[in-house]
Amino acid sequence: MKPIIKKSQIKDVNFGKDCKVVEPVNLYECNLGNNVFVGPFVEITKGATIGNNTRISSHSFVCELVSIGENCFIAHGVMFTNDLFKNGKLGGSLENWFSTIIGDNVLIGSNSTILPVNIVSGCVIGAGSVVTRDCKIKGVYAGNPAKLLRKLD
Amino acid sequence: MKPIIKKSQIKDVNFGKDCKVVEPVNLYECNLGNNVFVGPFVEITKGATIGNNTRISSHSFVCELVSIGENCFIAHGVMFTNDLFKNGKLGGSLENWFSTIIGDNVLIGSNSTILPVNIVSGCVIGAGSVVTRDCKIKGVYAGNPAKLLRKLD
Amino acid sequence: MKPIIKKSQIKDVNFGKDCKVVEPVNLYECNLGNNVFVGPFVEITKGATIGNNTRISSHSFVCELVSIGENCFIAHGVMFTNDLFKNGKLGGSLENWFSTIIGDNVLIGSNSTILPVNIVSGCVIGAGSVVTRDCKIKGVYAGNPAKLLRKLD
Repeated sequence: MKPIIKKSQIKDVNFGKDCKVVEPVNLYECNLGNNVFVGPFVEITKGATIGNNTRISSHSFVCELVSIGENCFIAHGVMFTNDLFKNGKLGGSLENWFSTIIGDNVLIGSNSTILPVNIVSGCVIGAGSVVTRDCKIKGVYAGNPAKLLRKLD
Repeated sequence: MKPIIKKSQIKDVNFGKDCKVVEPVNLYECNLGNNVFVGPFVEITKGATIGNNTRISSHSFVCELVSIGENCFIAHGVMFTNDLFKNGKLGGSLENWFSTIIGDNVLIGSNSTILPVNIVSGCVIGAGSVVTRDCKIKGVYAGNPAKLLRKLD
Repeated sequence: MKPIIKKSQIKDVNFGKDCKVVEPVNLYECNLGNNVFVGPFVEITKGATIGNNTRISSHSFVCELVSIGENCFIAHGVMFTNDLFKNGKLGGSLENWFSTIIGDNVLIGSNSTILPVNIVSGCVIGAGSVVTRDCKIKGVYAGNPAKLLRKLD
C-alpha cells in the first residue's frame, strides 16, 4: 500500500532576526531568538525555545518542553528527550513529559544525550555524554551517566 | 572528478496500511506493517522488518537482519548494527552478519546503539545505552554496556 | 522574521575517481580519494580528508582537521570533533582546534564519538564508543571512555 508522505519543512516557527538555517531541516511551532544557527538534518519540534546567538549543529534533535538559553553551542548529533518511559510505558502526552532547561553559555558536545534536566549557565558537557541528572554547579561534566569532572570559575 | 550521485528514496518497500513517512528518508527493500511512522532523516535498509504501530523516530538507522515487533517506539538517533567486525574485519556479506530481534512493546531511548541481540517484549532501553547482550528479562536496561536496572511486571 | 535559508550541497569538493554519494549530504571544501562512498545525511566540512576506498555511512559528521586513511569503514552516526572546549569556551578558530588522524583499515562502529585523537591502522572501535585518547596499539577498543579490549595481530 502507499504511505502518507510528508516533507520536512519549516512551519510556524518564530524566528528572531538574522537566523540562518541549512536545509533539509524539520522545524515546526518552535521559537528561535536572534542570530540562531540551525545546521542540516536538524529537527526542532513544537514548543521548543532557543535563545539568541545559540547554534544547533547538524543531526541534532530538540523536542517539546526543551528551553535552551543564549550563546549556547549544541554540537552535532545531540538528542534531547522529554519522556522518561515511566512504568515502562510511553508518556504519550504533555502531562507525562518532563522539561529541560539549559542556561546561557552552555556547550554540549557531539552525540550527547540529554534527559529531562536543568543545566546551569556556563556548563560544558563532554562529547558522548548521557546527562541523567541536573548539572547544578558550573563545571565540566562527561560520561555515561555524566558526572562533574571539575568546576569552572 | 565527478562522483556518482544517488538520491535518498523510498524504493521497493512493502508498506501496510496507514503508514506515514516524513521525507527525506532512505528506505529500500524493507517490510513495514500497518500504521508505522517513519520520521525524517531515517534510513531503513534491505530486509529489515518493522511491526504494526511501531514508530521509528528521526535520525535512526535500521539495517538488514533487524526485526522489530509491534507497538514499539524507537526514539531519535537509534542505530542498529549487524556486523561485529569479527577478527578486526568487516563481515562483508550476509553469512558473516548477525541478526537482531526486538519483541513487541519495546521502547528504545534516543541515541542508543543496538548490537545484534534479542530484546524480549516489554523492555525499556534507556537513552544513550549501548546494548551489547541479549535482554532476556522484561525490564529497564541502561548504560554502556547496558545492564538490567530493574524488572518490569 | 525570515531566516536566511541555505541548502545542503556538494561544493568545492575534490573527488577521486569512482566516488558515490547518496544525497542529501552537506559536503564542502574537503578531499575524498578514489572509490569513497558517502551515505545519506552526512556532513563533511572544510579541510577534512578521506582516503581511497573508505566508506562514510549515513548520519556521520566529519569536521575540519580530521584525516581518515584508506579502506576505513566509518559506520552510522559517527561524530568527529575538533574542539575540546578548553577553559569552558569554544575554540572559535583553527588555532584552538585539534586534529584527528585515523590510519588505514580502521573500523569505527555506529554512534561512536571521536575526540581529537590518533588511531593507528587496523584498529576496531566498538559501536557506541567515546574515544578520548590515542589508540596507539592495533586492537579492539570500546566503551565510554574507550579502552583497549584486546590486541589484534
